[in-house]
Amino acid sequence: MSQSGLNMSRRIRRTPYTDRVEAHGVRGFSVVNHMLLPKAYGPSVEEDYWHLREHVQIWDVACQRQVEIRGPDAARLVQLMTPRDLRNARVGQGLYVPLIDEAAGMLNDPVLQKLDDDRFWLSIADSDILLWAKGLAYGMQLDVQIDEPDVSPLAVQGPKAGTLMASLFGEAIRDLPYFGFAMFDVLGTRQLIARSGYSKQGGYEIYLEGSHLGAGLWDLIWEAGQDLNITPGCPNLIERIEGGLISCGNEFTRANNPLECGFRQLCHLGDDVDYIGRPALQRIASRGPVQRLSGIRFGGGRTPPCGKPFPLTTPEGLQVGQITSGIFSPRLDCNVGLSMVASTHWDIGTSLVVHTPDGLAREATVSALPFSDS
Amino acid sequence: MSQSGLNMSRRIRRTPYTDRVEAHGVRGFSVVNHMLLPKAYGPSVEEDYWHLREHVQIWDVACQRQVEIRGPDAARLVQLMTPRDLRNARVGQGLYVPLIDEAAGMLNDPVLQKLDDDRFWLSIADSDILLWAKGLAYGMQLDVQIDEPDVSPLAVQGPKAGTLMASLFGEAIRDLPYFGFAMFDVLGTRQLIARSGYSKQGGYEIYLEGSHLGAGLWDLIWEAGQDLNITPGCPNLIERIEGGLISCGNEFTRANNPLECGFRQLCHLGDDVDYIGRPALQRIASRGPVQRLSGIRFGGGRTPPCGKPFPLTTPEGLQVGQITSGIFSPRLDCNVGLSMVASTHWDIGTSLVVHTPDGLAREATVSALPFSDS
Repeated sequence: MSQSGLNMSRRIRRTPYTDRVEAHGVRGFSVVNHMLLPKAYGPSVEEDYWHLREHVQIWDVACQRQVEIRGPDAARLVQLMTPRDLRNARVGQGLYVPLIDEAAGMLNDPVLQKLDDDRFWLSIADSDILLWAKGLAYGMQLDVQIDEPDVSPLAVQGPKAGTLMASLFGEAIRDLPYFGFAMFDVLGTRQLIARSGYSKQGGYEIYLEGSHLGAGLWDLIWEAGQDLNITPGCPNLIERIEGGLISCGNEFTRANNPLECGFRQLCHLGDDVDYIGRPALQRIASRGPVQRLSGIRFGGGRTPPCGKPFPLTTPEGLQVGQITSGIFSPRLDCNVGLSMVASTHWDIGTSLVVHTPDGLAREATVSALPFSDS
Repeated sequence: MSQSGLNMSRRIRRTPYTDRVEAHGVRGFSVVNHMLLPKAYGPSVEEDYWHLREHVQIWDVACQRQVEIRGPDAARLVQLMTPRDLRNARVGQGLYVPLIDEAAGMLNDPVLQKLDDDRFWLSIADSDILLWAKGLAYGMQLDVQIDEPDVSPLAVQGPKAGTLMASLFGEAIRDLPYFGFAMFDVLGTRQLIARSGYSKQGGYEIYLEGSHLGAGLWDLIWEAGQDLNITPGCPNLIERIEGGLISCGNEFTRANNPLECGFRQLCHLGDDVDYIGRPALQRIASRGPVQRLSGIRFGGGRTPPCGKPFPLTTPEGLQVGQITSGIFSPRLDCNVGLSMVASTHWDIGTSLVVHTPDGLAREATVSALPFSDS
C-alpha cells in the first residue's frame, strides 16, 4: 500500500515520471490504461485550478498510451476504426477521432497522430484499443504491425507553456497549429512535440520515446519553469468540466454513440468512406440522437464529489439524465457538471434538478459547452 | 478523493457490493477491468492470511468481469482464442484457459464457463478481452453476440466456506467438483455458483446476475457466516504467492508465452485444433521456452513492498529474472516471490540473489510451486 492508499503492483504500471511525481508529494493517483495517473498535489483542486489558469504546470500523462499501427494496410485499418473522414489528413497533423464499434458504440476518443502515410499513433483514453485493433487486423488478415511503443507523453500546460517551451526548444514551437506536431531536439534525441493537452489553457505534449529519458526530461522542464512559477499538476476537474472536455468511461461508455457525445462534426455520414459501424451511425443520424452531452449548472452550495452519477430530473421528478462529472467552480460561483440529457429537455436554459447523495435536490439549468462566464 | 486516496469517478466502476465494502471499513482498493477491487480491511495482511486459512471470508470480486460469447460461431471463436483443447469441454465445467495472440503472447488467463454448447463466459483478469473478441468476430464475420452481462462474482473463501454455502444453498453444493458449477436458488432467482476462487483454501464463487441483488446477497452470506467467524476479505498476497497463483499484468504480460507461465499441460500443440498463435507456440515449444515462472524464497528480513519488480541475479550479478510479486510469509518464515527465471538457472535449489530497493542483496533459492512447508 502506498501513501496514497492505492495498492501498488507491477500490473498498475509506473511511468518514467513516477519517481519525480512521488518526490513532489503527489497525494493520489487514478489508473488509466493499467498505468498511474497523478490526481492531486497541492492543498486543493481550486488552488490548482487558479494556478493552471495563470502560470504553467508539468503533467505526467504517460497513461495516454500509444497504439502504433504501421504497414501497408495501416491507413485502411485506422479509417475503419473511426467515422471521421481521414482522406485529407496530413503527416504532422493530430486529429481527435471517436472510435466506434459495429453498433456505433463509443470505444475510445483518442488523438490520432499521422506520423507517415503508413504509420499512425492513437493516443488513447482508458480502454485496450490495442486489442480491438489487433483483433480486427487478425480477423481481416490485414498487413499491419500493431504495438504499444515505449512512448510516454509529458504535458506542459497553462498560459506560460509557450514561453517555457520556446526557451527550451526554440521559437519555432510557437508556430505549431493547435493539434499540430513536429519533431524537436530533446536531450540529444529527436522527439515528437504536439500543441495539445487535456486543458483549455494552451500547452504542449512531449511524446517522449525512451523511458530512460523520463527523469531527465522532467528535470529539464522543471528547471526551465522555475522563473515561471511552475508546479506539478494533472488534469484539473474544474477546468476540464468548464472547458467541456469529456472523459472516456465517465461521460460516455460503449452504450453511447458519437452523435450523443456532440461529435456530429467529426462523423462522416456519406457512403464514400468505409468504416465499422457506419450503417448503425447512419440509422441513428437519420432518426436523430435521443440524448446529447450537455453542460449543467447547479446550485445548493458545494456539491459532494461525484463518485457515483447524480440523477438529473425534471422538477416533476422524471429522470432525463445523470451528472457523470461535477464539481464546484469558484470562478462561476456555482456547481458545473456534464450529463447526457434527453432530447425533450436539452434546450439551453431548461430548468432541471440535480439529486446529490447528501439528499439535496439542487436547482439546475442546461448550459452551453464550454461553460461561459455569463 | 475517497478515504483510500484513490480518486473516485464513474470511469472506475463501483460494484454491487461497494457500499457494503465501504461500510466494513475497507482501507484500500486496486483497479481491475475498470472496476474497484478491495485490497485491505483488517490490521494487516498477515492477520488476514491466518484468518483465511482457518475460517471463511466474503470477497467482492465483481471486477472479474464476464465476456459473454454466444451464437452459432461461439464455440469456434472461443477455441480460436485459447491453446487449450476444448473439444471435450462439458456444460457445467469451468476451465482455466490461457488466451494468446498471434505471437503466442499472453493476453489474459480467465476461467471459461461453458454455459451451453453455444454460450460461454470468460471470467477475465485485467485486460479488455471484450475488445479482442469483438475485433476477431467482426474481422472474421463470425455469427456471435459478445457482451459484458450484468454479472458480478462474489467469492466465499476459506475452509469453512462449504459449511456456510451448504447452510444456504443445500448440501448438494458440496458435490460440485473443483471448477465445476451449477445453478442454485438465490434470493428467489437462479444463479450460477462455481467451486472456485483465487485462493487455495477452498471456496465458491457466486456469479450474481443482477446488480440490484448485490446488497441482499452480501447480507445473506454475512448473516449466515456469523457463527463461523466470517470477515470481509480479498485476494491475500501471502496466500496467493504461496499457492503459486499468478496474476495477469504482474507475473506475465503480452511479452510472455503460456509455456513460460507453466501452462504446458493446458496447451494443445498438435495440428488438429485450430487456434490463434498455434504456429508461434509450436515453434516456441520445439525450441523449449527460455524462461519459466518459478518460486523464489529469499531472506534478509521482511522485504519492502514489491511495487516495482526486484532484480533477480546470480551471485556474480548476472540478471536471470525479476520478482514481480513478493512478500514475507510468516508461516514459512522467509520472503516468498514469483519470478520468470532463465532456463540456465531455473533448477530447484539454485542459489540466486534478490535486490530490493532498500539496497539489500538478499540470498535466494529457486523453489517449487506451490511453496511447501519444508
